[in-house]
Amino acid sequence: MDKKEYAIQKHKEWRGKIEVVPRAPITNMEELAVAYTPGVAEPCLLIAKDEELAYDYTRKGNLVAVITDGSAVLGLGDIGPSAGMPVMEGKCALFKSFADVDAFPLCVDTKDVDTLVRTIALISKSFGGINLEDIAAPRCFEVERRLKEVCDIPIFHDDQHGTAIVVGAALLNAVKVTKKKMGDLRVVINGAGAAGVAIGKQLIAMGFGNIIMCDINGIICEGDEGLNPGQEDISRISNRGHEHGKLADALKGADIFVGVSKPNLVTKEMVAGMKDGIVFAMANPVPEIMPDEAKAGGAVVVGTGRSDYPNQINNVLVFPGLFKGVLAVRARDITDGMKIAASHAIASVVSEEKLTPEFVIPTSFDKRVALVVANAVARQAVKEGINRVPYMEIK
Amino acid sequence: MDKKEYAIQKHKEWRGKIEVVPRAPITNMEELAVAYTPGVAEPCLLIAKDEELAYDYTRKGNLVAVITDGSAVLGLGDIGPSAGMPVMEGKCALFKSFADVDAFPLCVDTKDVDTLVRTIALISKSFGGINLEDIAAPRCFEVERRLKEVCDIPIFHDDQHGTAIVVGAALLNAVKVTKKKMGDLRVVINGAGAAGVAIGKQLIAMGFGNIIMCDINGIICEGDEGLNPGQEDISRISNRGHEHGKLADALKGADIFVGVSKPNLVTKEMVAGMKDGIVFAMANPVPEIMPDEAKAGGAVVVGTGRSDYPNQINNVLVFPGLFKGVLAVRARDITDGMKIAASHAIASVVSEEKLTPEFVIPTSFDKRVALVVANAVARQAVKEGINRVPYMEIK
Repeated sequence: MDKKEYAIQKHKEWRGKIEVVPRAPITNMEELAVAYTPGVAEPCLLIAKDEELAYDYTRKGNLVAVITDGSAVLGLGDIGPSAGMPVMEGKCALFKSFADVDAFPLCVDTKDVDTLVRTIALISKSFGGINLEDIAAPRCFEVERRLKEVCDIPIFHDDQHGTAIVVGAALLNAVKVTKKKMGDLRVVINGAGAAGVAIGKQLIAMGFGNIIMCDINGIICEGDEGLNPGQEDISRISNRGHEHGKLADALKGADIFVGVSKPNLVTKEMVAGMKDGIVFAMANPVPEIMPDEAKAGGAVVVGTGRSDYPNQINNVLVFPGLFKGVLAVRARDITDGMKIAASHAIASVVSEEKLTPEFVIPTSFDKRVALVVANAVARQAVKEGINRVPYMEIK
Repeated sequence: MDKKEYAIQKHKEWRGKIEVVPRAPITNMEELAVAYTPGVAEPCLLIAKDEELAYDYTRKGNLVAVITDGSAVLGLGDIGPSAGMPVMEGKCALFKSFADVDAFPLCVDTKDVDTLVRTIALISKSFGGINLEDIAAPRCFEVERRLKEVCDIPIFHDDQHGTAIVVGAALLNAVKVTKKKMGDLRVVINGAGAAGVAIGKQLIAMGFGNIIMCDINGIICEGDEGLNPGQEDISRISNRGHEHGKLADALKGADIFVGVSKPNLVTKEMVAGMKDGIVFAMANPVPEIMPDEAKAGGAVVVGTGRSDYPNQINNVLVFPGLFKGVLAVRARDITDGMKIAASHAIASVVSEEKLTPEFVIPTSFDKRVALVVANAVARQAVKEGINRVPYMEIK
């Protein structure tokens, strides 16, 4: 049986990759009277008086909604809300497996921004946080921004920020191992969708240097026509030399290439024009350039989204621990400061002695990562004063 | 520690009465590649081509949403969406404990019918069925009716139909044990809210006889002013003698009293005026008349909502098995026929030999009930042609 058939067979066996189980025993009348009527009336009344108590008396305090409209699922595109659900369930299974955070998948059957925002906001009180997933750009920018305004729980579009955080982490170590100087770097990002724009913003906030965004037409420059709001935003803070040209032009003399675009767009020759290149080619499953090819072009550090090459850039390193930290202090938001703290936390898991060009980012199943991220994010939330409860070490 | 304090303490310990756990193992790269990328793309693509396959490849096939607006929670009234959640979580724990049906609680933060309907419809594709809960009358009638129109999964307002089904079941056996004649009975229902109206409709559909609905002002008669849509509906098929008067008048010569109203509204004297009275006094926690008092008035069969008296009328006998049956054949709806089948199924669990005035309804923890109900409901759905897959015995 080939891998595709095997995946289908397993999904059929599982009949769903998540399950809702009781935490309260209900095996006799006495237990029923505590967990249900009449006992349940007491926590209800307490929450009615003080809504914050929902974190104590319901699952809200450990519960994230994983929500999609099915419009940009994996590399499959707009396959619709029902078809997106296997991915959402998988994500929920990862939340629980990696960080003991409960997550529940929901698909919303609309592509309209207003409707999507309103629907999610109206059910948001059931949850302690919301992970938006696989919502197409540019809609995803506005959906996230408006939900952040109307909800008092953290909203996080993982395709944007999860990717940005893990790329930031890998780059921190890649810069260290190549002895490049932060602040002085030329960073080319190819792909100006949800992930690309978020990576650009985060790398600027982290102080990497001059960021050049490229899309299918080449370098993006402030004032270009046809930019979506997310691209316009970043055009104002990136490419400060107002360059124009193609990806190949952008890469000349660049220190770093980050690809969130399409297979095989980068050649060995382009890499050869970089300065001790750091190449993160994350198009999936076929990267912008294969690792061997990039190395042949002179790249010093190479990463991809794949598990069969060194340096897998995988945002499973981010979201479980991030939400664990957010929920621990009941943060109202996920800020730039918290995202940067998460990048540094992930990077810190690779110790100085172990750091090599082939190992700049922890492996996806490194159990230490989620806790390190959770604690860093929680501490940062407290530092920014957006926590609802004090920080205690998360173990 | 008193019972209220104990219930609060346990809820604090539980931190939620439900939990979302993985069904797919994700402990290494190979497993990740099956349950998540790249393997997950295959079931996504299959569902994109045929939405019905969501029942096979996601949890939809065993998953119910328990949804409230928090407007009529237990006897506590409109305590708001967050405060209703402990009840919803309890309900979800019951679904799983009693019938291995997964259920997930959601509160919707609106009281507007249009918004409530639209919000629920937009997220309905994530689920195989929807259990509406604790939504105030008369809003609940319209919300349910409209959701049934727009959703192609079953919608069930438990406060209405769960209660009606279990009352129907208990009455079938009560009528048998008192040797009363179906079709010839005078049935007084006190309380014309969600539960009362649904009970009235179901008892009429089951052929009990003449139903007299009462509310706080007394007997409801066709043409009365100020009736809500649900009450208007039932006024056209109940009280065929067009009687007027108070509850006491209604009860004169009645065979059956069903109370879903307020404590202590029925006196021993009123019961004495009934004919071999069957008295189901279900106001909670204090019934319309206490069982001893009803017996002293001459009632032959007495039931309440309480577990500390015989004949507890508890809709936990209904919803777990009902949804199990509905999901087994992927029914598109829950029809009157299916509700009546459920009543007969519950009643059948009390065998002829065991049937006494003190035992007309199975106990809440009788493990046989859910399966008997599930099979009866699934068979009826097939009979009515609203199943999506064939019936196979549910074990």
